[in-house]
Amino acid sequence: MELSDFSTTVGEWLKGEGPDSDIVVSSRIRLARNLADHRFHNRAAPAELEAIESEIGSFLRENDGRFAKLYYRMADLDEIERHILVERHLISREHAAAESPRAVAASDDERLSIMINEEDHLRLQVLRSGMRLAEAWGEIDELDNRLSRAFKFAFHAKWGYLTACPTNVGTGIRVSVMLHLPALVLTREIEKVFRAMSKINLAVRGLYGEGTQAYGDLYQISNQTSLGKQEEKIIDNIESVVPGVIAYERKARKHILATNHLQTEDRLHRALGMLKTARLLTSEETMHLLSAVRLAAAMQVIPEIPSSTINEIFLLTQPAHLQKVTGRALAPEERDIERASYVRKRLSTYV
Amino acid sequence: MELSDFSTTVGEWLKGEGPDSDIVVSSRIRLARNLADHRFHNRAAPAELEAIESEIGSFLRENDGRFAKLYYRMADLDEIERHILVERHLISREHAAAESPRAVAASDDERLSIMINEEDHLRLQVLRSGMRLAEAWGEIDELDNRLSRAFKFAFHAKWGYLTACPTNVGTGIRVSVMLHLPALVLTREIEKVFRAMSKINLAVRGLYGEGTQAYGDLYQISNQTSLGKQEEKIIDNIESVVPGVIAYERKARKHILATNHLQTEDRLHRALGMLKTARLLTSEETMHLLSAVRLAAAMQVIPEIPSSTINEIFLLTQPAHLQKVTGRALAPEERDIERASYVRKRLSTYV
Repeated sequence: MELSDFSTTVGEWLKGEGPDSDIVVSSRIRLARNLADHRFHNRAAPAELEAIESEIGSFLRENDGRFAKLYYRMADLDEIERHILVERHLISREHAAAESPRAVAASDDERLSIMINEEDHLRLQVLRSGMRLAEAWGEIDELDNRLSRAFKFAFHAKWGYLTACPTNVGTGIRVSVMLHLPALVLTREIEKVFRAMSKINLAVRGLYGEGTQAYGDLYQISNQTSLGKQEEKIIDNIESVVPGVIAYERKARKHILATNHLQTEDRLHRALGMLKTARLLTSEETMHLLSAVRLAAAMQVIPEIPSSTINEIFLLTQPAHLQKVTGRALAPEERDIERASYVRKRLSTYV
Repeated sequence: MELSDFSTTVGEWLKGEGPDSDIVVSSRIRLARNLADHRFHNRAAPAELEAIESEIGSFLRENDGRFAKLYYRMADLDEIERHILVERHLISREHAAAESPRAVAASDDERLSIMINEEDHLRLQVLRSGMRLAEAWGEIDELDNRLSRAFKFAFHAKWGYLTACPTNVGTGIRVSVMLHLPALVLTREIEKVFRAMSKINLAVRGLYGEGTQAYGDLYQISNQTSLGKQEEKIIDNIESVVPGVIAYERKARKHILATNHLQTEDRLHRALGMLKTARLLTSEETMHLLSAVRLAAAMQVIPEIPSSTINEIFLLTQPAHLQKVTGRALAPEERDIERASYVRKRLSTYV
C-alpha cells in the first residue's frame, strides 16, 4: 500500500464499529520493549540505531506477512507524510519530529503497528474500534510472544521489562480507550470524571495524547503506572471503570434530550448547517461541529449520517490528510478553504 | 380581499423592485389631515369619532374604487389581524392598540392606505418599493386633491394644515425611505450616517418607526419638521441626501468584499445555513440572518435567491403573519418552532 492510499481510507479504529461504539471510539494497547544486546535509544549512536532499525525491520518484512506492505523509514518521508501517520495514530508526534534513524511498521488494516526507535527500541500497538480491550490484548500478546522468540528483550527478574523511561518499567503496557463525551462536556460534569479517574490513578488526556487538548469532546482514559501489576489487572481496571463513564454519558444525553429537547435538536441541526455551508473551517471548529453531528447521529436526531462518514471526515480534514487529499502543501488559510470545501461536498447529500 | 389572503401575499413595498432596490427597500409619504367641521381626535367623543369614520368610510367605498375591497373597522378585527396590518405597514402600532372608533382603507396593491381616526382624522399614506419618492408624491397628491374636493380640511392661511400634534402642522407631510444598510453596520460607520442626518434635521429610525430598533439592518430616514416648507422642498431634501447614503453603503460593501472576501462569503453562507437548519428561530434572529442573505444576494454571493423571496419570508415570519400562516394563535416558543419550520421549507431549494 502506498501512503497516498491514506487519503481515501480510514484505519480500523475509525470504522465506528464494535461494542458501545456510540461512545467508545477506540481501544488501544501498547507495549514498550527494548533489545537486551543494544543500548537504550537515548544512549545509542546513530549507527547503532540504524542497526536496530535494520535488524527489526528485516525480521518483520521477512517473517510476518502482516507487516510486508506498510513499512516506512522516517527519513524517507516528508513532513506531510509523517503527519499523516500521526493523524492516523500509527506513530507519535515525537516519532514524527525526531531526526535519529527510526521507522514504523503497520498491518494493512492499521490495527497493529510497531514504532522502531521511538523512546524505546520497540513500541508495539494494537488499535481497535469500539470497546474491545480483551481482543486487543489477545492480539498484542500474540505479537509480543512472536517477537520475543526472535529477539532477546531487556528484562529483569525483579523489575520486569526495562524501558528508557522509568514510568514504563515493569509490564511496559499502556492501555487506553478513547471516549466521545459531548453530553458530559455540555452539562459540565466532565470534571467529575477527571477527578474520579485521577483518584484511581487513571489519566485523562486529549485526542493526541499527553499535553493535547480534548478537541471534539474526545477523551482518552489510560493507566498511569505499569510497574508491579500484571497486564491483565491493568486491563481489568480500565475495563471495570469505563462502563461507568459510558453510563454517565448516556444518562447526560438522556437528560439533555428530556429537559432541552428542542434546544438540543436546534443546536445539533445548526452544527450540521454550519458544516454544510461554511466557506472557511479551522480544524478545531470542524472537530467541534463534527462532535455535535456525531452526537446527533447517536441520539437519532440526525440518524441518516453513518458514524463511518463522520469519522472519515474527521480524519481526512486533519491538516496532513487534507493536504494529501488536495494533492499539495497548503498554507493555513488555504487549508480552511479546502477543508470547508471538502466537508460541504461530503455532507451535501444529508439534510 | 379577505385578511386571510395576507398570509400568502406581500404588499407592493416588499416586491423588491424599483430604482436602487438593492439598498432602498421602500419609499413612503404620509399626509396628516383633519376635517374642519369636527374636533381633533383627542378632543372628540366616541360618537363624533364614529361619525367621522362613517363619513370618510362611506365616501371612500362609494367614490373611489381603489378602496372598495380593503376597508376594516378596527373593532371588527382581533389582535392578530390588527398586527398583520401593522406588520404590512398599513397601520401604526398605536392605531392597532387604541380602543376608540377607527378604521383603515387600503388599495388592493397596498400602495395607498388611509388610517381614519389615528392621531389625526386622516392619515394618507403611499408606500412604494425602491427609490420612488417623486412617483409616490404624485400619487398621494392626487389622493389628497380628490379628498379635499369632498371634505373641508382644517387649514389656516398662515400655519397651513392643522394637526393634532404641533410637529405635523403646516404640510402634514412625512417623507421616509427605508434603507438596508448591513455593510455600514458591519464597518461601524452607521453612526456617521446618524450624525450627518441629524445635522440636517432628518431622523433615522428602526423598522416600525419611532422608538423601534433597527432589526435586520433596516433604517428609515425621514423629515423631522413639516412646517414652513413646501412639500416638494421636503421631498427634494430627502432625495438629495439618500444617494449619498446609498453610495456610502455600496462603498462599504465593496470594501468588505475587497478586504475580507472569504470571511464575508463564509459569514453570509453560514447565515443561509442557519436559516436552512435551525429548529428554533426568534423573530429577531430571523431578521438578522435574512439581512445577511439579502446582502449576499445583492453582492452576488448567493445570487440565486430572489429578493422577493427574502422579503416574503421577512414579512410572513413576523409574529402575526406567522400565526395567520399557521392558522392558530401561538405561544412565543411555538412561534419559534413554526417560524424555523416555515423558513426551512421556503429555503429548502437553495444551496
